[in-house]
Amino acid sequence: MTLHTGRHFLQIPGPTNVPDRVLRAMDMPAWDHRGPEFAELGFAVLAGMQRLFRTKQPVIIYPSSGTGAWEAAIVNTLSPDDKVLMVETGQFAVLWHGIASKFKLDIDFIPGDWRHGADIGAIESRLAADRQHKIKAVMVVHNETSTGCVTPPHEVRKAMDRVKHPALLMVDTISGLASMEYEHDAWGIDISVAGSQKGLMTPPGLAFVAANGRAHAAHEHADLRTRYWDWTFRNGEAHYQKYGGTPPEHLLFGLRKALDMLLEEGLDAAIRRHALLAEATRHAVSRWAEGGALAFNIVRAEERANSVTTVLVQGREPNVLADYCRDKCGVVLGRGIGDLQGRAFRIAHMGHVNAPMVFGVLGAVEMALAALGIPHGRGGLQAAVEYLGREVRP
Amino acid sequence: MTLHTGRHFLQIPGPTNVPDRVLRAMDMPAWDHRGPEFAELGFAVLAGMQRLFRTKQPVIIYPSSGTGAWEAAIVNTLSPDDKVLMVETGQFAVLWHGIASKFKLDIDFIPGDWRHGADIGAIESRLAADRQHKIKAVMVVHNETSTGCVTPPHEVRKAMDRVKHPALLMVDTISGLASMEYEHDAWGIDISVAGSQKGLMTPPGLAFVAANGRAHAAHEHADLRTRYWDWTFRNGEAHYQKYGGTPPEHLLFGLRKALDMLLEEGLDAAIRRHALLAEATRHAVSRWAEGGALAFNIVRAEERANSVTTVLVQGREPNVLADYCRDKCGVVLGRGIGDLQGRAFRIAHMGHVNAPMVFGVLGAVEMALAALGIPHGRGGLQAAVEYLGREVRP
Amino acid sequence: MTLHTGRHFLQIPGPTNVPDRVLRAMDMPAWDHRGPEFAELGFAVLAGMQRLFRTKQPVIIYPSSGTGAWEAAIVNTLSPDDKVLMVETGQFAVLWHGIASKFKLDIDFIPGDWRHGADIGAIESRLAADRQHKIKAVMVVHNETSTGCVTPPHEVRKAMDRVKHPALLMVDTISGLASMEYEHDAWGIDISVAGSQKGLMTPPGLAFVAANGRAHAAHEHADLRTRYWDWTFRNGEAHYQKYGGTPPEHLLFGLRKALDMLLEEGLDAAIRRHALLAEATRHAVSRWAEGGALAFNIVRAEERANSVTTVLVQGREPNVLADYCRDKCGVVLGRGIGDLQGRAFRIAHMGHVNAPMVFGVLGAVEMALAALGIPHGRGGLQAAVEYLGREVRP
Amino acid sequence: MTLHTGRHFLQIPGPTNVPDRVLRAMDMPAWDHRGPEFAELGFAVLAGMQRLFRTKQPVIIYPSSGTGAWEAAIVNTLSPDDKVLMVETGQFAVLWHGIASKFKLDIDFIPGDWRHGADIGAIESRLAADRQHKIKAVMVVHNETSTGCVTPPHEVRKAMDRVKHPALLMVDTISGLASMEYEHDAWGIDISVAGSQKGLMTPPGLAFVAANGRAHAAHEHADLRTRYWDWTFRNGEAHYQKYGGTPPEHLLFGLRKALDMLLEEGLDAAIRRHALLAEATRHAVSRWAEGGALAFNIVRAEERANSVTTVLVQGREPNVLADYCRDKCGVVLGRGIGDLQGRAFRIAHMGHVNAPMVFGVLGAVEMALAALGIPHGRGGLQAAVEYLGREVRP
Repeated sequence: MTLHTGRHFLQIPGPTNVPDRVLRAMDMPAWDHRGPEFAELGFAVLAGMQRLFRTKQPVIIYPSSGTGAWEAAIVNTLSPDDKVLMVETGQFAVLWHGIASKFKLDIDFIPGDWRHGADIGAIESRLAADRQHKIKAVMVVHNETSTGCVTPPHEVRKAMDRVKHPALLMVDTISGLASMEYEHDAWGIDISVAGSQKGLMTPPGLAFVAANGRAHAAHEHADLRTRYWDWTFRNGEAHYQKYGGTPPEHLLFGLRKALDMLLEEGLDAAIRRHALLAEATRHAVSRWAEGGALAFNIVRAEERANSVTTVLVQGREPNVLADYCRDKCGVVLGRGIGDLQGRAFRIAHMGHVNAPMVFGVLGAVEMALAALGIPHGRGGLQAAVEYLGREVRP
Repeated sequence: MTLHTGRHFLQIPGPTNVPDRVLRAMDMPAWDHRGPEFAELGFAVLAGMQRLFRTKQPVIIYPSSGTGAWEAAIVNTLSPDDKVLMVETGQFAVLWHGIASKFKLDIDFIPGDWRHGADIGAIESRLAADRQHKIKAVMVVHNETSTGCVTPPHEVRKAMDRVKHPALLMVDTISGLASMEYEHDAWGIDISVAGSQKGLMTPPGLAFVAANGRAHAAHEHADLRTRYWDWTFRNGEAHYQKYGGTPPEHLLFGLRKALDMLLEEGLDAAIRRHALLAEATRHAVSRWAEGGALAFNIVRAEERANSVTTVLVQGREPNVLADYCRDKCGVVLGRGIGDLQGRAFRIAHMGHVNAPMVFGVLGAVEMALAALGIPHGRGGLQAAVEYLGREVRP
Repeated sequence: MTLHTGRHFLQIPGPTNVPDRVLRAMDMPAWDHRGPEFAELGFAVLAGMQRLFRTKQPVIIYPSSGTGAWEAAIVNTLSPDDKVLMVETGQFAVLWHGIASKFKLDIDFIPGDWRHGADIGAIESRLAADRQHKIKAVMVVHNETSTGCVTPPHEVRKAMDRVKHPALLMVDTISGLASMEYEHDAWGIDISVAGSQKGLMTPPGLAFVAANGRAHAAHEHADLRTRYWDWTFRNGEAHYQKYGGTPPEHLLFGLRKALDMLLEEGLDAAIRRHALLAEATRHAVSRWAEGGALAFNIVRAEERANSVTTVLVQGREPNVLADYCRDKCGVVLGRGIGDLQGRAFRIAHMGHVNAPMVFGVLGAVEMALAALGIPHGRGGLQAAVEYLGREVRP
Repeated sequence: MTLHTGRHFLQIPGPTNVPDRVLRAMDMPAWDHRGPEFAELGFAVLAGMQRLFRTKQPVIIYPSSGTGAWEAAIVNTLSPDDKVLMVETGQFAVLWHGIASKFKLDIDFIPGDWRHGADIGAIESRLAADRQHKIKAVMVVHNETSTGCVTPPHEVRKAMDRVKHPALLMVDTISGLASMEYEHDAWGIDISVAGSQKGLMTPPGLAFVAANGRAHAAHEHADLRTRYWDWTFRNGEAHYQKYGGTPPEHLLFGLRKALDMLLEEGLDAAIRRHALLAEATRHAVSRWAEGGALAFNIVRAEERANSVTTVLVQGREPNVLADYCRDKCGVVLGRGIGDLQGRAFRIAHMGHVNAPMVFGVLGAVEMALAALGIPHGRGGLQAAVEYLGREVRP
């Protein structure tokens, strides 16, 4: 017997659920990318992205995956053998390390256990020790999608300022932007990297870079620049040149609608919504964890992300639980990746998500825990419901 | 603060959620209704509808609301002053009574309290007393959408057979078909009436009548026949004439896809799915009812429908609860209608629905009960989850 | 070899091409029909329909085909044995006659040859002769979709006024509204009937009736009233009751967008567009007719419709031409129906249509004429292009 | 007065018209990119792309514009200071030159006048003179989208073979694939580059590279490799790794449907369709050219492309003509770019296009020529229609 006929619950940390209005906006004939309507669309989308990043700096849109935007951040500002400081917060930090290696950067990679955010103190010490300012960039992941852990970028900035280190601060906020507080300008971020398929509720295929004046200054001398990612090349007179080839129109149609939706709700309201739904999820997980088999992957409560919760499973194969949820309930959970493969599952609560969707996914997990006989504290979902009932007053 | 951004949870008992695949099938250019592709579509849809009604009899498709199909059932088989037997099971029985009155039928309307199904014994007595067989039709509502109550049509048939009464048995299964067991042929139903917008998961605008040989025989002498509804008129040689004008192509595009989906899942599986999700809902309501303020509208457990559950609320305005669910969670509940206006709310679990959708709506109700301080037994949603965890084995 | 891969050119006189924006507006989740958003939608659509009919009178929307709206016009205002005057202008006049017969009206049917509009003089004579005012209604078809012929409703009104006859004037403008000038109020029409699938660019399934005070006065005493079509029944307090059952939401979603589009373009501009495209088509047909095999079905140029052109074919089976256009070019022409079956084809230039679409269909016909060796004057399409080049100045 | 309400005719050489079925396939919820359904989709799409390229070699799909794929071809196989041979056939050859410069390749750029294809003899001479085989790659554009000119890649291969030169042959067939004959394997192409938005009828955002064993051998030693474009990095065990990050699911949904459509029609039939529609267009242009103001940009008839025709305009601003077509008729022509800016317009007849669409665009141009008083031979559209009438027999 299965109970999955009905709406598909895609609760992985990206791609996230695309709202109907966004899909419908994409479901339209192509436009002449050289015509005035497209220019208007492009300007609207760029302005909307600036509001999401909370920046007055220009934003660059790439037809690419998020990986492409990481590469763009590097090649536009660095040169071979430049020294950079990175922190192993999880799978995506490791991927970023891989890209940097490929470009023959000299990487100082602070090791981590995938259960904590970046160690700000360690970053500060390394920078303090770098008297000659050989380190050209500090690269951190705002929210590690694999582990569900937040590293506060403004704390990194403060540490850099304390030791007066001139390195660029580059932040991957691919699974943070529009789900958690983020301030490109106010926090002093030099380069921010994001993607369309997480909090932005748009299909995958677009990536974004916001870069400030310091980043553009570094760009002047960067020796890794390649044509496709090059900011200067994309700064042509004609609007459509910003896309480095034929603009990905349909994805942009979708993005504009998603931006409209986020700004209609209000970015602060959206961020508060994520906070409440994440906390509801954590109420459920806390209760389940009393049974001994489940645990939060992220040790410190204040580092747990509002976009995704990674749950460790002991004594049972977590994929069996994920399979049950998918096959019996039509709920797709994130699975453990990288070091967490076979050891965890992930509940995404990011993007186009509301209370009943979270109840649906938590209910499916709780149903699976019961059906599979996985030890767990009872009443997790109830705790989530009651928490929200207290927070959301009539 | 609201948490409704995300998927809309439309949990009213019709129109129900339309699956994406059905909407997308409708989102297509019009066809030449006189061409061969359209004929093929029409035959496929009629064959599919026969499978849903479980009949070998022809099915007629009307571009109309369900009300139109009720009217069609009457005008195609009856004449002015014909006597008919009806039972007041709820709002839709009352509406049907209204149509019959308009046609100057002589109506014997067995009164009811809107908390029970039709009294089979009372029907049997009236028929037994009708020695001269003046009663030409017995009209019952399979599932009263307003009250959430089932009247088993085959029990009505048995009662008719016991007293050997030749009246036609007409059944409104608008909110029953494809959600609950229904057997047009095996149960000896003469006329069945259904609509597109409930268990059939298709937008409103199509209504269906299945009629057997006895109904068609009555049709020969019926004096209420009008052109639009007339079965004979719609029986032209050309396929498109079945629609009494330009066929409602896009609704038929959708219906075909919905039929494909139902038959892919299997009609029995879909009916079993509805039974489990309804029972889960009843587990929650039972627990909540322990608080004293809520109660099942339908008194006898065995009469409660698998498509919708009507919940009475005492001491509080139920619309306040429905408003909270809609405004804070994006969950739209059915409200009390007719005699139940201001006294009840309704949870639909019909059509394109699965376990997490039910958890979502039950969670929203439970959140509302808590936030509004409506007395209720705790753990309703948990009871629903645990029930399904027992029933749906890995 | 075929050249039909590409956009489907559906050039039949209904259903017409549905614009992408209309289809996309329909491709949305269902709404609670009892909620405030739906009420707003309903009011917007009714107001828009009043603008199309150019009336301040209420408009009724039926989930039905256009045939249903004809039936509604009759049953809401007439009684059995009422005398009515009708004119055989073509297939749809004949169908309307059939409905009236079914209701046992006493019909005076002025015969016609399907090549002319209604004979206004004949109407006037009959009315003048009816000293006792037994004729309760005059029923004319504004545009005969089968023949491509216009009968000017205001000329009928003037004739009625000249003889001071009090009968109701009922007009079928199903294939006229929004394509040709139409003035429900200014022209003194009592009842106008329309459908969604022609000039309104919306999928079939909705029909409309506009009725003035005289029609509503007649309604009071009409003895043919049935529940589904009854204006009074649909006049309930709650907005959704206007639809006589669950409202056909998705069709209404589409209609609203189509109304928006028509009013954005401007109704006068849309009517002028139809006039130009129709005249371009007639330029082509005139040229082709020089070959002897083709001819306009409508004899008098001033009676030829701006929504569809019916072309007689002599010496060849016109369906062979239509098959070629469909199979080789992906262009679907209307075929002859009723008395014109096997003798004509029809080119629709109605609804969502522009110059290149007309060039596409005319080009396909001209290609077919050449390929099939049907005698025709050369340069028909060129004449159409040059006509528009003269009319549409830079 | 305008006549543009109706279907938008986008007749630019990319992005091309996206078929409804492709758009609808994209208009679907996101999937778990790590699940089995996505793997199946990915394999189906790769197999389909192999059939289009007519290759048994692996195809790589990039989320990027076509420019990205050019960059990928270079970085995966070449090293700084490598010598390459390129030919200035038009705007896209110039762009490719720009990318190569950026990577500090040593470029031998054979100049051209933008009115001819690559000079095969000149290529052969350069290669013959390169005794030391310093030239590592010959890069040609199969179809220059800017000029409408074909360079036959197999003739380039033959020239290379004649002088036994071991350089890689890299071909940009972005606006050639699926519109004109193309044989990656049989013609001995080492690297082929294509994009989604031309003959593939899919929205922009995907680019493709087909590379044979020689190309992969060169890849081993290439020193320009970067992470995003790197073939090896994309060759991970898990299917989704082929996309170098989150796969662009919705674009792939669309691509699969487009491939289905192309293979349903048959690739040969599609290519023949393009040939006929292009020849029809050329019949019109030839006639118009008799007036003296218009001329084919491409001098030699046998070099004119079957996907786009570039028309030179003398004595008048071609954009005025393009504006008329767009504003009055809803037909969007390609405009001159690069050296042809302000001197030409382009008629695309590529992708999802059929005879009536071509008649529509040619009719709009002819209407504009007349309305604007641009000297032209009359009867261009008629010549096109008559040509197709001869070619497409009943």
